[in-house]
Amino acid sequence: MIYPNSLEKLIVNLKKLPGVGEKSAERMALSIIEMDNEDVENLSDALKKCKENLRKCITCGSLSDKDECEVCLAAKNNSRNRNLICVLEDSKSVFAFEKAGKYDGTYHVLGGLISLSDGIGPDDINISHLLKRIEQLDNPEVIIALKSTIEGETTTLYIKKMLENKGVKISRLSYGIPMGVEIDYLDELTLLNALKDRKDIS
Amino acid sequence: MIYPNSLEKLIVNLKKLPGVGEKSAERMALSIIEMDNEDVENLSDALKKCKENLRKCITCGSLSDKDECEVCLAAKNNSRNRNLICVLEDSKSVFAFEKAGKYDGTYHVLGGLISLSDGIGPDDINISHLLKRIEQLDNPEVIIALKSTIEGETTTLYIKKMLENKGVKISRLSYGIPMGVEIDYLDELTLLNALKDRKDIS
Repeated sequence: MIYPNSLEKLIVNLKKLPGVGEKSAERMALSIIEMDNEDVENLSDALKKCKENLRKCITCGSLSDKDECEVCLAAKNNSRNRNLICVLEDSKSVFAFEKAGKYDGTYHVLGGLISLSDGIGPDDINISHLLKRIEQLDNPEVIIALKSTIEGETTTLYIKKMLENKGVKISRLSYGIPMGVEIDYLDELTLLNALKDRKDIS
Repeated sequence: MIYPNSLEKLIVNLKKLPGVGEKSAERMALSIIEMDNEDVENLSDALKKCKENLRKCITCGSLSDKDECEVCLAAKNNSRNRNLICVLEDSKSVFAFEKAGKYDGTYHVLGGLISLSDGIGPDDINISHLLKRIEQLDNPEVIIALKSTIEGETTTLYIKKMLENKGVKISRLSYGIPMGVEIDYLDELTLLNALKDRKDIS
């Protein structure tokens, strides 16, 4: 055995985390020895508590410590706009929107995208519940914010079709050039989409 | 608050690990939710046990679960060469040597390098104990395996001077070109050192 037993065990377990290989697991494990007892204790507890407490919000499907997430609760108290729903692939996207601030509607997390090649159909993701939510709203507006891949586009079109003739205002995020990126570094598709979605200069 | 409470806590604590920023902490934390209960439990326990159990070997200073490390115990049982000591900066270097296999001597971990600019003198690192170990050996041989920086070289020269006239065979690792690296990618100093340390082709 190369490592002391307890170090070996920690390295093996750290390697189960995404993006953590042998080298970084070793570096992390060795850093534990230099850390305060309290910090190690806190990290150890936070892992367990996170696993125990986190669940999907019964309304929007986003991750939450309670049955219903903060955003959906805020919408119930009318401190967020409950008639505006942003449809996202996963909870990570919810956190990205919340970090950006500004958006004051609610979310709907699909938990995946329709993928013909992977055999994932509309029933395999959280779409039917979106329809139920919309039926309870006045003048609902849906913003679809899925990535611009075949799966993202397929899912966007499916939802658009599903909501047709239901009096729902529906839009998608604009495609275009990300902030601060050199034009000549962009891939062709992004460039063409930015051209297609071009805006009048106001 | 952007994240649910328990997720926020885990992210904050993961960010204390080396090389883990906001994005990777978020990715790791979210992966916890997908992991088996048992895996999370194991990781959580491994963190605590590693902190509790790991200590410095009383002989060589390398990390160990017991008072004396496996290598030093093996040397005591004559299954490793106790008269050969490889001097290293840290336990990470011990693990690198053990991974490489082949080496059957013992180690001595300094826990740092002499650095005039950082005010680290010979008494601040684990050198004096090396002298005590050597005094108890027959025909001791010391291999100094420190990195080729000013601090590494200073420490190497200090140890060499300290062991002079004590009947100790002393050497350092050869400097040279690492395996598989293009010659034109090497820095000048490495190239000059490889030239100076050149070997007859046998």
